[in-house]
Amino acid sequence: MDSQSLRAENDFSDQQRAGLYHAIVNRRDVRGQFVPDPIPDAVLARVLTAAHFAPSVGFMQPWSFLILTDPAVKARVHEDFTAANAEAAAMFDDERQAIYRRLKLEGIREAPINLCITCDRDRAGPVVLGRTHMPAMDIYSTVCAVQNLWLAARAEGLGVGWVSILHPDRLRDLLGIPEKIVPVAYLCLGYVSQFNTRPDLEKAGWRERLPLEGLVHFDRWGGDGDGSAAAASLLEAVRQTMERTRDGSIT
Amino acid sequence: MDSQSLRAENDFSDQQRAGLYHAIVNRRDVRGQFVPDPIPDAVLARVLTAAHFAPSVGFMQPWSFLILTDPAVKARVHEDFTAANAEAAAMFDDERQAIYRRLKLEGIREAPINLCITCDRDRAGPVVLGRTHMPAMDIYSTVCAVQNLWLAARAEGLGVGWVSILHPDRLRDLLGIPEKIVPVAYLCLGYVSQFNTRPDLEKAGWRERLPLEGLVHFDRWGGDGDGSAAAASLLEAVRQTMERTRDGSIT
Repeated sequence: MDSQSLRAENDFSDQQRAGLYHAIVNRRDVRGQFVPDPIPDAVLARVLTAAHFAPSVGFMQPWSFLILTDPAVKARVHEDFTAANAEAAAMFDDERQAIYRRLKLEGIREAPINLCITCDRDRAGPVVLGRTHMPAMDIYSTVCAVQNLWLAARAEGLGVGWVSILHPDRLRDLLGIPEKIVPVAYLCLGYVSQFNTRPDLEKAGWRERLPLEGLVHFDRWGGDGDGSAAAASLLEAVRQTMERTRDGSIT
Repeated sequence: MDSQSLRAENDFSDQQRAGLYHAIVNRRDVRGQFVPDPIPDAVLARVLTAAHFAPSVGFMQPWSFLILTDPAVKARVHEDFTAANAEAAAMFDDERQAIYRRLKLEGIREAPINLCITCDRDRAGPVVLGRTHMPAMDIYSTVCAVQNLWLAARAEGLGVGWVSILHPDRLRDLLGIPEKIVPVAYLCLGYVSQFNTRPDLEKAGWRERLPLEGLVHFDRWGGDGDGSAAAASLLEAVRQTMERTRDGSIT
């Protein structure tokens, strides 16, 4: 039987596929470019729906979405960020610390909406299909929801910033999150004055984007393909594809 | 100052945005529909590049990609799946167990490529910007890379299945993954005969898709918006958006 004939036709136009890649390459972690324009309900509903269509282990859909707009709530979270960030800065050596202290790392008060995405580990009972041997799979599902939302937001012209410099227990207290629910992501969400071309940390000289071809192994950790033409050919394709991302797309 | 004038123009066409949403809504966890057609290097390079453009804490890019094509490697992983799956089945009560045993949960040997995505927790040294207070952030970054790859694959007509019913230590042994590197995701990748309209587990009656409006809280865990018109209006928009996803898109 000819397997070619069994294969489903691709239902994406070139433009649709380019749209996805545009979102992936131009998504940024936004900290300093939020503008106060309100987010229409229809737009917020679409990005939440995108999150809800994430994959989830055992189809458990363990996520919840806490939409935070009360300035008093944001102020308390920002206070905790300030405390955590001072602790964080002190962990770096002098040279890095000087750079660290100059970085803007959150837009909690400026972003019109803050969003806490949580994982309810009990949502599908104690035994979950697919979580039996990798217990963190429900947390991973929730992270997939975050990434869906992040990409959808980019396509809607909305910036998202993930704030992880917080004390998780303090966040739990501030938002009244029960013990068994895990706050996975704290996000700032809003329209932006611009999306930066490069990640903030790359621009600031904190770290560089790594060459992807150095991160690809064959058939085992560290496997270089044993000099096979197939491995060399894939690595060359990776190099060329990465080279072309300088134009802001994946082609 | 008029904030409207500060806001960046959205650089997405309607078709590009629709492309992203099409990938999000029609992405499936594929277990049973792989066809053996080889994946061209250019296509594989694009989906790997999509993964590499995931957000990462402190821009640490902690991921590596193990591309597994050797049938002997796949056979050993499949053997471990078989053992783990038997253990998993026994954890369900009789009624669920009967359904569980009928489900096809992996395409390890059929998919032309298996891909293990790992997280190197030491890639940026011991102190990582943004990981100081939430130590799992590097693992989360790696999961974001998985989700980027999954969506890109969908837009390329490639199915992806995430196999989590494996013993992580056995997988580490089989692939020679060092102790300090975490295998986060084991994926099966290949062209498919079809993408199912609904998730396999929904079709099988395992669990249903939850109403999204029940998962949205306001300003605190369990907060219902205190009867505000703003909260009611957002929830109505969410309901309507979810309703329209029956047509296979987010609009």
